[in-house]
Formats: sequence, C-alpha cells, structure tokens
Amino acid sequence: MEKINGGVTVAKGYKAGAVAAGIKYSGRDDMALVISEVPAVVAGTFTTNVVKSAPVKWSKKIVDEKQCVRAMVLNSGIANAATGPKGDEANEAMAQAVADTFGFDKYEVLTCSTGVIGMQLPVDRVQNGVKLFTDALDDTVEAGTKAAKAIMTTDTVKKEFAASFTIDGKEVKLGGMSKGSGMIHPNMATMLSLVTTDVAITKEMLQKVVSKLVAKTFNMISVDRDTSTNDTFCVMANGLAGNKVIDCENDDYKAFEEALEYVMTSLAKLMASDGEGATRLFETKVMNAATYEDAAVLAKSVISSNLVKTAIFGADANGGRILCALGYSGVDFDPEKVDLTIVSPAGSIDLFKQGAMLEFDEDVAKKVLLENEITALVDMHAGSSEAVAWGCDLSYDYVKINGDYRS
Amino acid sequence: MEKINGGVTVAKGYKAGAVAAGIKYSGRDDMALVISEVPAVVAGTFTTNVVKSAPVKWSKKIVDEKQCVRAMVLNSGIANAATGPKGDEANEAMAQAVADTFGFDKYEVLTCSTGVIGMQLPVDRVQNGVKLFTDALDDTVEAGTKAAKAIMTTDTVKKEFAASFTIDGKEVKLGGMSKGSGMIHPNMATMLSLVTTDVAITKEMLQKVVSKLVAKTFNMISVDRDTSTNDTFCVMANGLAGNKVIDCENDDYKAFEEALEYVMTSLAKLMASDGEGATRLFETKVMNAATYEDAAVLAKSVISSNLVKTAIFGADANGGRILCALGYSGVDFDPEKVDLTIVSPAGSIDLFKQGAMLEFDEDVAKKVLLENEITALVDMHAGSSEAVAWGCDLSYDYVKINGDYRS
Repeated sequence: MEKINGGVTVAKGYKAGAVAAGIKYSGRDDMALVISEVPAVVAGTFTTNVVKSAPVKWSKKIVDEKQCVRAMVLNSGIANAATGPKGDEANEAMAQAVADTFGFDKYEVLTCSTGVIGMQLPVDRVQNGVKLFTDALDDTVEAGTKAAKAIMTTDTVKKEFAASFTIDGKEVKLGGMSKGSGMIHPNMATMLSLVTTDVAITKEMLQKVVSKLVAKTFNMISVDRDTSTNDTFCVMANGLAGNKVIDCENDDYKAFEEALEYVMTSLAKLMASDGEGATRLFETKVMNAATYEDAAVLAKSVISSNLVKTAIFGADANGGRILCALGYSGVDFDPEKVDLTIVSPAGSIDLFKQGAMLEFDEDVAKKVLLENEITALVDMHAGSSEAVAWGCDLSYDYVKINGDYRS
Repeated sequence: MEKINGGVTVAKGYKAGAVAAGIKYSGRDDMALVISEVPAVVAGTFTTNVVKSAPVKWSKKIVDEKQCVRAMVLNSGIANAATGPKGDEANEAMAQAVADTFGFDKYEVLTCSTGVIGMQLPVDRVQNGVKLFTDALDDTVEAGTKAAKAIMTTDTVKKEFAASFTIDGKEVKLGGMSKGSGMIHPNMATMLSLVTTDVAITKEMLQKVVSKLVAKTFNMISVDRDTSTNDTFCVMANGLAGNKVIDCENDDYKAFEEALEYVMTSLAKLMASDGEGATRLFETKVMNAATYEDAAVLAKSVISSNLVKTAIFGADANGGRILCALGYSGVDFDPEKVDLTIVSPAGSIDLFKQGAMLEFDEDVAKKVLLENEITALVDMHAGSSEAVAWGCDLSYDYVKINGDYRS
C-alpha cells in the first residue's frame, strides 16, 4: 500500500469538477460534482443529529435502498438544514438537475450541502450551476482538487488523500475529499466526505467496512463538540480495477480495509488539524484501558475539553485538566493508576505518574508543546485496549470565526 | 420571602472571615472560614468526576456519615486534586488545624479547595493561615463578603445571595456564597458553594431538599462543559431561628424550599453570568417538552454549545445553531414542530417556526442580542414540561484566561 497524490479522481472511471453557481458566496467555486462512468456500489454513514438536513435525508434513503449510484453533487454556502418541506424540494431539484444533465436516474445522485443552517437553497442558481458541469468535469488530479476546494467553508486547506494497493494482481486505487472545520463532533459520520475507489466489492461488504472504520476514524475527531446536521460520509466503488469481487472477509477484504483506514484516518486528521482557528493538531492516545469502548470515550473526552484545548493553545503543560477530562468522561477507573506523558517532535515530558503530578522542567515542557502536532499518551493500567482521538487547540480565531460566521 | 443583603453571615449564629495565607497567590486573601456557634445539620452534593479532589473525598464522607458540622474551611489557588495520598494528608491537616484552633472535632470541619489541579497544598502555610482566623472572624455582612472574595480564582465578581422568610412565626434567614467561573459544568453540584441558614430542620429533610434543588439550579448551568474535580455544594442549618423543627414535607418545608431555591438559583445565575470571559448571561427556556428530563437535556445542550455561545458573543441571530444543538442533545423529537424566539430587555425576535427559519429584521435582532441578558425560548410542542438552563457567551477572553491560567 502506498500514498498517492490526489483525491476523488485517482481511481479508474471517476470524473470531478467545480463551478461557481453563486449560491451564497461570490467569486469562488461553490458546487462540486463527482461522477462514475459506470454504476458504483455505495455505502455511507450519516449524522445522528435529530435535525437532519434535506440532503442527509435524501442520501441516506438512497444508501439504504439502492445498490449503486452514479454521482454525488455538493454545494457550499447553504446547509439546507432546518428548511422544512421547501428545503426537501430544493434538494430533490438539485439531484434532478444532475440526473437530467447527465442522463442518470435522480435516485442515482447523492447530495451534500454545507454552510449556514436555516437558509433556503436558491433552486434557479443550483440548476444553472449544474448545467455548467457539462464542460467542467475531468478525470485529472487537478479536477479532483477543484472539487475539494469548492466544498470548503471556514476550512483553510483543501482536504484530499489517496492510496493504492494491489489485490488479486490488480492495482486498486482509492481517494477521498472532505470538508469540515467547525461544528465537528461526528457521531456516525462526519461533515461531507466522499471516497471513490475502483475496487470491486459487494454493497454488503462495503457498508460493513465503512461502518467499522467510521467508528475509529471520523467519529474519533472533534473540533467543538457540536454534531452537525449535515454529517455525511460516503464511499463509491465502481469495480473498474478488475479485481475479483470482494464478497466476504477474505485477504482481499483485509487489504482494502487497511487502505481505506489509511485514507479515512488521514482525512480525519486533516479535518482535526484544520479545525476552526486551530494552530495545533492535538492527538490523545489512551493505552491499557479495560475495554476499547472505555479507551475511545476517554480519548474523545480529553480532545473535546475546552480547558484542555485552550491549554494546548497556550502551550501550557496543564496535565490536571487532562486528568479532569478523563474523570468526567463517564468511564469508571482508578485515578491513582493513571500515567500521563506529552509527546511531540521536540521530545516528551512525563506529567503524571499514578494519578499525581510529577516535578518537571517547565522549559522542556514549553518546547515540547510549541510544536504543531502534540500527543497526550495516557496509560490507564487497567487492561490492554487502546484508542486514539484527534482534535485541535481552541484559539482566539475560533471565537472570531464563529462570532461572525452567519453574516 | 424577600431578598436581603449579604451572604453566609446573615443567618443567626454564623461567623466568617478571610486571611492571606500565601498558599499560591500573594497580596490577597486566599483562605476563608465559616463557623457556626452551635452544631449545624449538614447536607451536600459533590462532583461526579471520577477524579475527586482530596477535600471532596473528605467532605463527602462527613456529609454522608455525620449529623452535624461546625465549620467549613476553604482555600483558593490550589485545588488539591490529583495529588495522591500526600494530598489527602494535607487536606486532613487543614481540617485538623481548624479543629485545634477552635476546639472542634476534625470531622466537624468541611474542607473546600479551588485552583490549579495537581499541585500540592503547602501544609505549613495552611496551618499558619488557620491561626490567623482567631482574630479574623465576625458575624457582620462584611465578614461574609470577605470570605466570598477570598475563594475567587478567575471570578471577576464575588458571588453572594441571601433571603429571609417567616415560618412558624419566626424569621428564618439563609445566605450563600459561591465561586466558579471556569471548569463549570456541574454534575450533581457545583464548584464551591456554601449556604448557611438558621432554620431548624432534620438532616434527612435538608438533604432531600438540597438534592432536589441542585438538579434544577446548579446542575443547569455550564460555562465550558468541563465538570470540575472539586464541585461542592453544602448547606449548614443550625436551628437558631427557633422554628419548630422541619421533619416532614409540610408547609414549613415548602416555604424553606422556596427560599432555598431562590438563593440557589440566584447563586447559579451569578456563576453563569461571570463565566470566564463572559460578556452576556445566556438563558435557554425549553417549553412544552414531552418530559422534564427532555426539557432539561435540551436546554443544557443549547447553553453548552460552543457554536451557539460564539454566536451570542457576536450578537448574531444564528438560530440554526440552536436547532442543531437541540438536535444532537440525545432527545428524540420532531424538528418540524419547533419554534424559537429570542428575548432580551430590548425586545424579542421570532427566528424559527415549525422548524423552518423565518424572515426577520436583522437590525431588530442585533438590538435584541446586544443586551447583557439574552433568553432563547424554545417551544417543542410535544407536551407540557419545561426547564431552564443558564450559560454565557464564549469570547476571546475565555481563550486568553485559559491559554495561560496555570502559570
């Protein structure tokens, strides 16, 4: 398996592109389209928020009921959530416009929207935008990147990742794009992420691996504990790699799982490190927990704490806040067994041993904490399970971005 | 019932005071002591954080096992949490010092600490500090205020509230003090709050009313979703008002409950409005929910959301974020029935009707939102239960305060 350059267009048979439809932003691309030349098996996971956006309701129904899809259309600027029946109609019109333009059935077109909640999608602009795609699609890496850029809102970097591996003597590729910077606390999925692959796999096996991997990748990141109304993660697999169709958990399945986990983890970390206002990626690895569930809940509690996040922003070795966040996570444990070490490219520093703070060199701690990627290693001494979660620091810019986002 | 001036010294038979023990801060009072002339029935609630501070473990044991206490000693600067067995010894030494100085049993002395987690309490300074209290206690309003000031950390205002009422022909008084500005997401109690009263009541009835009221007062506030290791709320009742002892849920009990709720709600709101960096008190009232539990969870989800809190800071009428926070609260409901109105002293503005955003005047919305006290009224149209929660906005100063608190 190796990392390759690009995103949703690296696998065989996929084209992507972006257009400026003027939905809410001006002077930039705000719609993206990804299509597969042939029907692609689809799997996905969606937000657990009770308030679901119109595109989430639409795409979830398709993933639940259909074997294959041909396209995903995405827009930024307006989330089409909390928009009532009118929002559902606008969303269907978006899918219909793609279906009409490219000769698909509308139920073969997944939809995704991101942006302000509550505003209605301007259907005429969406329809005019979709027409522009007839000249805007390509299978180049650049075309995939254009799509990844068009779906950005408060994101500061485009998020793409791709890998290739070989099964059954055939090279298989997969690549994805994500957007997401605020309202990130995925619960079953994350805000707008699509992976395309040319692997041949059954829908059942694809959904199985997606559901498993979402739990340990996208669901382990948080920017602000706010679970979006629009969280969507989908994988399209069109089979053009020519491998023997994966229809059980054999070695080919495991090879695909490994590559998909690599791509999903990388996209998830890209999102965490580009959290709104973030200056640092903050990883927490909980080791030797009693169960995986304990480890996951503990790790996510630490990376979600505002007090831990502000301490990381201030490069302050405030291990007490990490202990506190472990303590209120809901997991029962013996505080007097917990060790805590902070690690970064600049070195490491032991902060707590058996639940009590150690004497440590503040200058060394500062040096460790001033790096861009910080890891808290928590040893529970309670078992043998581990989990990793990814977040970011909480800075002035988070407040700035969100104190004035809507207008 | 009426509000009266003062705090922990308004009720008969209580003295309080503060001294500068130099525990961590210099040039300010950092220890407070409250004593009752006669044994006082005690009730309390404490943090549910698995990582409990030494004083929480100590005071919880006393409240669980003892009928009466004589004193509460409090310090700021160091939280004495995550300090291991050495921390427990230091805490016991603090109680012992008070017991020795004033002729109490050490198990009649409640302890509370607040400040940095992980640091050890300097026992010698604590012991020297306690000796200074022999000349520092008084039953005046000013003495209570000095105690309330001594326990402040990042608080910007001292928090006291008192009321009086009549039962059984006798005037009963009660007054409390609190501290708390960050790491505020109480779960069973809140950070350091003490109410003293001269009512005559059994321990059983006192604990009953305290547990009931904590759920709808302190447990309904949040500053940053971080449940402290040191949350403590205690009530001392010494019976000097001379009323017939309250030993069942009669009219006297109800009169006391009403007054205690008034004091606890007022202290809780003082804490929320003085949340770290806060510029506005943000109240959310959920009406017509299916159950009280639903209403409480929904209200607390809204006031806890970083995205809602930053919008309130920016005076941005971003109702979509409120809908989103209701949606991920864990409560099941029909989003297409929800109405949302924002109210402040400057007027009100309807934002959502039946789950869809309304057209509204941005200038009016800005005017409503620029006030210091904002209320979100959420109508679920699902039943007849309601709950209120209190929080604050999330500002640059929250980041500033917590990016550099420990050092």
